Amino acid sequence: MNPSSWMPPVAWSLSHAQTVIEAAATVAFAASGLLEAARKRLDVVGVCVVAGLAAFGGGTLRDVLLDRRPFFWVAHANWLWVLLVACVAAMWLLRARHVPITQRAMQWPDALGLGLFSASGTQIALQMSLPPLVAVLMGVVTAVCGGMLRDIVINEIPTALYDRRPYAVCAFAGGWVLVGLNHLRMDDAWALPLAAATATLLRVAGMLTEVRLPSWREDL
Amino acid sequence: MNPSSWMPPVAWSLSHAQTVIEAAATVAFAASGLLEAARKRLDVVGVCVVAGLAAFGGGTLRDVLLDRRPFFWVAHANWLWVLLVACVAAMWLLRARHVPITQRAMQWPDALGLGLFSASGTQIALQMSLPPLVAVLMGVVTAVCGGMLRDIVINEIPTALYDRRPYAVCAFAGGWVLVGLNHLRMDDAWALPLAAATATLLRVAGMLTEVRLPSWREDL
Amino acid sequence: MNPSSWMPPVAWSLSHAQTVIEAAATVAFAASGLLEAARKRLDVVGVCVVAGLAAFGGGTLRDVLLDRRPFFWVAHANWLWVLLVACVAAMWLLRARHVPITQRAMQWPDALGLGLFSASGTQIALQMSLPPLVAVLMGVVTAVCGGMLRDIVINEIPTALYDRRPYAVCAFAGGWVLVGLNHLRMDDAWALPLAAATATLLRVAGMLTEVRLPSWREDL
Repeated sequence: MNPSSWMPPVAWSLSHAQTVIEAAATVAFAASGLLEAARKRLDVVGVCVVAGLAAFGGGTLRDVLLDRRPFFWVAHANWLWVLLVACVAAMWLLRARHVPITQRAMQWPDALGLGLFSASGTQIALQMSLPPLVAVLMGVVTAVCGGMLRDIVINEIPTALYDRRPYAVCAFAGGWVLVGLNHLRMDDAWALPLAAATATLLRVAGMLTEVRLPSWREDL
Repeated sequence: MNPSSWMPPVAWSLSHAQTVIEAAATVAFAASGLLEAARKRLDVVGVCVVAGLAAFGGGTLRDVLLDRRPFFWVAHANWLWVLLVACVAAMWLLRARHVPITQRAMQWPDALGLGLFSASGTQIALQMSLPPLVAVLMGVVTAVCGGMLRDIVINEIPTALYDRRPYAVCAFAGGWVLVGLNHLRMDDAWALPLAAATATLLRVAGMLTEVRLPSWREDL
Repeated sequence: MNPSSWMPPVAWSLSHAQTVIEAAATVAFAASGLLEAARKRLDVVGVCVVAGLAAFGGGTLRDVLLDRRPFFWVAHANWLWVLLVACVAAMWLLRARHVPITQRAMQWPDALGLGLFSASGTQIALQMSLPPLVAVLMGVVTAVCGGMLRDIVINEIPTALYDRRPYAVCAFAGGWVLVGLNHLRMDDAWALPLAAATATLLRVAGMLTEVRLPSWREDL
């Protein structure tokens, strides 16, 4: 008898939903890494490393900080194969056909990943009874630090730190929504999607409008 | 009855002193991050991230290396609020009034932080029975790596690695003072301030004189 | 009676061989860090930090990811003294005599380190029952990430990500050789050197021929 059949159905579907969420967000972030690697004309190793950092870097850094094992990509090692094969296939396909991927088109799956990662990162930290602000920041780390590591490795200042677009602040807001709904004892099956949707919609709103964060010494 | 009231007064005051020390050094380092973020014209997210890395990065890296939890900023999460509010307030105040903060003025609190962090980092590692050189290097990591992470994120070679000013070597010397005093069984209440003062005074001496570290191929 | 005398001779010689392997590779990588630090004209602190990162960075990152303690440089703290003394001595000797170290000459010990580190890193992860691909990647991290951290700290894109030379892929191949030999139940005393030799010879072959990895958009 499969031991997982003993798991109560709700817990199972939650744990299952969390895996699906992490997977979907992972693909979106890996694509952003691919794009940056192409822009810097990295070789096949560079493409895989930068895509892998963008995809798994945020969650891995969160887990290192929380001293949590196994990592997503250790428990689900098949995803590493998917990443490697997808990177090599993408290099081969996109070189052959000159498929145009614009940074603009990439913003949509990226906004989805931002919401999903900030909600799941915050939830994981809340389950470990960390203070609310720390939990929310762990959600922001999950959502934003993959992209930051991607930019640091390719020797650029992380975009999230200077472009004045709402990005990390959307993840921050989504995390607080989860903390609030958690406080109201809402079931995670509802609270998680609501928090993720808040962060994603705020990001989309930021993309479609000219809202800008304050910058230091913009007048200079 | 509060369980901490059972703690012997000396142990309590030591643990209390260590918290105060870490807090004071944290403020000094956060200010250095603020300054660098302003120089690079980061937005409000960048200012908070760079100030936070400068303030908490060294101690967090030390704790990750030592596999020590909770981090300072998890156990004292209120300090994160202070950091966030201070960063936003600083951006607003300094933009409005054009208060001149020069790198020169910042060197003084930074020298204090250098001493305090190197002493507390070394002490923590000694309490874990690590070899003396490792303990001293953990003090250097605590004192110097926050600034190194700050510089790496804003895409510069860490100043501590090339400017030939005595900085990390002062932390190194302060750590050895603590190891020596510890070996002589001096009480930590005396040994910690003495070690911190050694590192700080050496740094101040380096600031006021023209002492330079040897560099590789300075003649080329 | 020395407790280690109770260890069965084979286990002892394996554990001893692993220490020797890590030490030899460490020296090769430290030299690569020295060279880069010289090229960037860092001061004595920078030379020690960059050499130390190149030497111990890959293994330390692997151990942080695997949540494994103590680090090599904590268990064998004497190696830190060797590193510090060697760095200072190298600065003094090479400045005085203008010994020419070319990047070309450095490739040979570096190829040795690549093989040794990828085999030992993969073995350590296999002993922890991690999935084969994760174990192989831990070997690659051990072999390649020291050099990547070295390049990131001196503010360059890691060479391993763009120069199209076979480097990380050699470590990857060596790791799979170890996984295969392990699967065939070959004794580690044979499997480890065979895997290390595979990675090293592939790297040497790559150095002596004009084999290049595919790059993204090489035609632009």
